[in-house]
Amino acid sequence: MDVGALVADAKRGRPRAVARLITLIENATAVPGGVDPLREVMAAFAAERGPGGAGGRRGPYGARVIGLTGSPGVGKSTSTGMLIRALRKRGQRVGVLAVDPSSPFTGGALLGDRVRMQEHATDPEVFIRSMASRGHLGGLAWATPQALRVLDAAGCDVILVETVGVGQAEVDVARLADTTIVLLAPGMGDGIQAAKAGILEVADVFVVNKADRDDAHAVVRELRNMVALVHAPWKPPIVSTVASKGEGVDDLLAALDKHAAYLDESGELRRRRLARARDEIETIALAQLRARFALAGRERRLDLLAERLLAAETDPYTAADDLLSSLG
Amino acid sequence: MDVGALVADAKRGRPRAVARLITLIENATAVPGGVDPLREVMAAFAAERGPGGAGGRRGPYGARVIGLTGSPGVGKSTSTGMLIRALRKRGQRVGVLAVDPSSPFTGGALLGDRVRMQEHATDPEVFIRSMASRGHLGGLAWATPQALRVLDAAGCDVILVETVGVGQAEVDVARLADTTIVLLAPGMGDGIQAAKAGILEVADVFVVNKADRDDAHAVVRELRNMVALVHAPWKPPIVSTVASKGEGVDDLLAALDKHAAYLDESGELRRRRLARARDEIETIALAQLRARFALAGRERRLDLLAERLLAAETDPYTAADDLLSSLG
Repeated sequence: MDVGALVADAKRGRPRAVARLITLIENATAVPGGVDPLREVMAAFAAERGPGGAGGRRGPYGARVIGLTGSPGVGKSTSTGMLIRALRKRGQRVGVLAVDPSSPFTGGALLGDRVRMQEHATDPEVFIRSMASRGHLGGLAWATPQALRVLDAAGCDVILVETVGVGQAEVDVARLADTTIVLLAPGMGDGIQAAKAGILEVADVFVVNKADRDDAHAVVRELRNMVALVHAPWKPPIVSTVASKGEGVDDLLAALDKHAAYLDESGELRRRRLARARDEIETIALAQLRARFALAGRERRLDLLAERLLAAETDPYTAADDLLSSLG
Repeated sequence: MDVGALVADAKRGRPRAVARLITLIENATAVPGGVDPLREVMAAFAAERGPGGAGGRRGPYGARVIGLTGSPGVGKSTSTGMLIRALRKRGQRVGVLAVDPSSPFTGGALLGDRVRMQEHATDPEVFIRSMASRGHLGGLAWATPQALRVLDAAGCDVILVETVGVGQAEVDVARLADTTIVLLAPGMGDGIQAAKAGILEVADVFVVNKADRDDAHAVVRELRNMVALVHAPWKPPIVSTVASKGEGVDDLLAALDKHAAYLDESGELRRRRLARARDEIETIALAQLRARFALAGRERRLDLLAERLLAAETDPYTAADDLLSSLG
């Protein structure tokens, strides 16, 4: 594979090159020793100057990264579609990364590209891609920042990272994004109640979707009570939308812009992106260590140690020491 | 702290000792260098023989580990309560670990111990504990197996690991458990549809809770169609329950027993526990590596590298190499 040509094509915003690079990233997570092909790609992105490149007009992550998360059924796909349309009207190039943490064994992404692509399939300014973890420890934590780099290099102004679920995935998205939207909808049972502790930590903007339903008002009220208790410089605004009809999209864009301004003025943007860079470097370093493990035949050693642990012939710490011992 | 006395007390099934050891585990995840106090604990568990001990009558993980997962609002707490009562009627000692992956920043567990403890607070044969990740990379992946060891050593016959959410948490629980129950309920919007790909991978037993609702039948039917496509030696049974009234608990126990028998006969139990032991050793080894990083002043180096990455003066791979270089 000619990585140089692929990178150059991606920087010209050619969808096929972008797609191939992201596939390369996805597959690289599958094998412990497989992190190296990407080294060349990332070095090429960093070295070249030009629009969207690491040394180019916007620098790395020139793209604004917006996370979008919520439980199944709140209307994430529809909301993403609504945002794509609105951002395209502003003339922005949009990348969408649908991260699916719930399907690590199959290797198939839950939310099919095809369904989502229909409306924007012929728009060269929209890149939509779903990614599934390959069950590799920290797989998506490792792969998602790399995919963001590819979409950024392809000149996206905004990258939407969509992920399902309450839980760790939500937090992971929040760590990647400049701004995190948490979607809620009425009729989700006691979901809001249960999700409370978590979502307040990650949400920069709340969206109550399906706001034309009777019980939407109660959700907004509950959120308002929660947000009232926030003692931080940024209080997450609550936006009501009916994504299926495009209602509320202007309010949502306004809230996003306001948060972008806050991030800039407060220095929070820099802080978040530094934390993201730290995470990214550390995750790659740990993946490299794992690869070294594998190369040094430690996988077989690990099998043996697992047998011994199961037979109660060792404890997990002693076994871990043994595994590490040849590392010096 | 006298670790020896604490371990001895835990093995006698004293709730305070069990609680203190799990707190020790939780706190150890918070600091990169903080994994060592547990070394002594785990070595003590492995060394001593006796009921529940690693070398004792049941071996390590003598306890049967049952995972219980599902979206917010399906009735996980109520179902856990129902299972506790049923298992206590069988005379079994029960441990419950409520793992909360959605609240890594606060350090406070989402599902309060107190609420859950009310009914079983005075029962010395029930240990209930919630655990929250401390935001440490792989925090719960690291801490949960250790907490299982403590509950196992305390003589629990069954340990229920409950976690919220569709997503990675679900998969993590499935990797820990001998048997994974996936809970669903009617009225969750298109949640089942969305969760499809993920839950089929992890479910050993499906429970449709709130089965007294009109639309429960549709959920069961949908699941049945899904399961019909499974070509594996074990087809997950579908059990209908009304956990709030205790209805369906006998069917659920029967399904769990059947799966336990299957695990034994097929050799799958050993396969799963070996995989779990591998995960456990590897996670500890990686945590140790991270601790070494910190001790070697690499945290400051990482800050510097993150600055350089943000300024596009390096690429993530070169930065990771730099971070690893002093490791040899």
